Amino acid sequence: MLEHKNQEKTTLAALGEFGLIEHLTKNFSIYHQSTLKSVGDDAAVLDFKDKKVVLTTDMLVEGVHFDLSYMPLKHLGYKAVIANLSDIFAMNAKATQILVSIAVSNRFPLEALEELYTGIRLATNKFKVDLVGGDTTSSKTGMIISITALGEASAEEIVYRDGAKENDLLVVSGDLGGAYMGLQVLEREKEVFKVNPNNQPDLEPYTYIVERQLKPEARKDIIELLHKLEIRPTAMIDISDGLSSEILHLCKQSNVGCNLFEDKIPLDPTVIAACEEFNIDSTLVALSGGEDYELLFTLDQIHYPKIKGNPNLTVIGHMTDSSEGTALITRGATKIPLTAQGWNAFKTSP
Amino acid sequence: MLEHKNQEKTTLAALGEFGLIEHLTKNFSIYHQSTLKSVGDDAAVLDFKDKKVVLTTDMLVEGVHFDLSYMPLKHLGYKAVIANLSDIFAMNAKATQILVSIAVSNRFPLEALEELYTGIRLATNKFKVDLVGGDTTSSKTGMIISITALGEASAEEIVYRDGAKENDLLVVSGDLGGAYMGLQVLEREKEVFKVNPNNQPDLEPYTYIVERQLKPEARKDIIELLHKLEIRPTAMIDISDGLSSEILHLCKQSNVGCNLFEDKIPLDPTVIAACEEFNIDSTLVALSGGEDYELLFTLDQIHYPKIKGNPNLTVIGHMTDSSEGTALITRGATKIPLTAQGWNAFKTSP
Repeated sequence: MLEHKNQEKTTLAALGEFGLIEHLTKNFSIYHQSTLKSVGDDAAVLDFKDKKVVLTTDMLVEGVHFDLSYMPLKHLGYKAVIANLSDIFAMNAKATQILVSIAVSNRFPLEALEELYTGIRLATNKFKVDLVGGDTTSSKTGMIISITALGEASAEEIVYRDGAKENDLLVVSGDLGGAYMGLQVLEREKEVFKVNPNNQPDLEPYTYIVERQLKPEARKDIIELLHKLEIRPTAMIDISDGLSSEILHLCKQSNVGCNLFEDKIPLDPTVIAACEEFNIDSTLVALSGGEDYELLFTLDQIHYPKIKGNPNLTVIGHMTDSSEGTALITRGATKIPLTAQGWNAFKTSP
Repeated sequence: MLEHKNQEKTTLAALGEFGLIEHLTKNFSIYHQSTLKSVGDDAAVLDFKDKKVVLTTDMLVEGVHFDLSYMPLKHLGYKAVIANLSDIFAMNAKATQILVSIAVSNRFPLEALEELYTGIRLATNKFKVDLVGGDTTSSKTGMIISITALGEASAEEIVYRDGAKENDLLVVSGDLGGAYMGLQVLEREKEVFKVNPNNQPDLEPYTYIVERQLKPEARKDIIELLHKLEIRPTAMIDISDGLSSEILHLCKQSNVGCNLFEDKIPLDPTVIAACEEFNIDSTLVALSGGEDYELLFTLDQIHYPKIKGNPNLTVIGHMTDSSEGTALITRGATKIPLTAQGWNAFKTSP
């Protein structure tokens, strides 16, 4: 994509590493009092006072996690931040700071990095997080993005994966499988483009799922909603690898079993339509398709009246004694074991 | 190097991402009370109480920052941690936690990652820092390591780059240029090996400088020494890019000038010998060779009696009014402007 453009581009070597960092980070706002010193010293300095610090990191590799032939750099920057913030929210914490490290080959001009940082800045502005540091270097081939995100919460607020109890409700935000089906559509259009570069794809019917893939959102709103409803989940995780894999994490770490009801899994009509078109089972897509960045959590049944009917939340099952295992109750009322078939970076490697 | 071995190797895909993380991180000790929750949830949870948090990150790319044909993986893991801890010490802080993210192509078997993590563990044990998270994924070609390090300090302890004052002494720990000359020796042996694979290199005369390149140390001891001597530097930075570049950072951010005396720059005899052999100017090597991970700091002259004669510390100059500029006073007593010619990742890219 980038190589097709003919405008004059600025090489990264011309700016140098320090000039580049200064150039890319100058337009970022600082939102948090906890940020005492951001970019520009050997390290950032933060002050969380009596709050606990929540800390996560994620690495995205070109050709493994993203394909620049259909992923615009601005979206990539946005999504890379989202993937990390989602992990902070999954701890029931407030996201506060990020560090962004990037390695790029010299096929990327400065303007490409500016696009990427525009997306990063959109996310930091929307979610009010401070960019406090990072590293910018060259790579031999593609682009690698490594982001570390920090958040804060009081000890009582933090929700781990290991607190789910028998009879707790299993709840998911939003709907599932959209990001995966969006990827299928984009991959198909890429193949069509290879054969016929003049073909103009009509992606309009797929707007929702393509957006789920290219511009996912982290569910800060759900954390705020739960707070307002005075609900503290007993366990929580974000859905980055697929529903079944995340449920298995919760069950294993909480030492409980689970009944997941197939007919309760929330699917957008566009996802169902795309599944029919691609001849893929929509349940499998919800169970194994990753990158939806929805929140999956368990809560005491006492809270049910507060969430009943909320369009953002769906009760999809309940936790059982660990001896009952992790089960999917199918539409035909058959009980089958839930297996993890989510995203595995090493299995998709060339 | 790895490809020469014929033993049975375990593929990374066989373990899967979660199995791999568990396998690689299981033997790490936790040293700090501030680590409430380490690997195994969406995020780590830390508690720094009334301390400030110091935070830095670094990305190392195969073929740009390291060459596996002469860098053993264990050393690489060790060095990657050191590079980050050095930044924490340069803030006059105590290093407490690290996050380690790794992307590797499938040419690396599990045993290679185990070697890398053995080196990482050596560093975490030696410097007593907790591995609290990270990411492990595949890459299309080489290996990429991204480390984030955290440290803690009270507000009064933290030393920034911007506090140097006119007449402050400019002090450096250890000696300079060793890591760069070690790299020259290793690069030369690599070329010899290409021509004659049976040649057994005699690296013994170069032990010190090769070790400076392959197994550098972060100067925690200097931070502890300064603390014991009740010296708080006015400004500090670690030398990762070369002395001149770091001095210019201190001067720019502190808005002062500097006189650096060429004849004061500490050089090990092995470095001088290697410079003669390679016909490179040793001052240039000290000024521009990176990766020594020594500390460069400024302090009030009042402290001079405390550091005088200490073999670990050398006064190499003093700070001046900014109008005097940044100058190198040569052995011939000529004053020439100091220019940054340090490591620039983008200039060395292919």
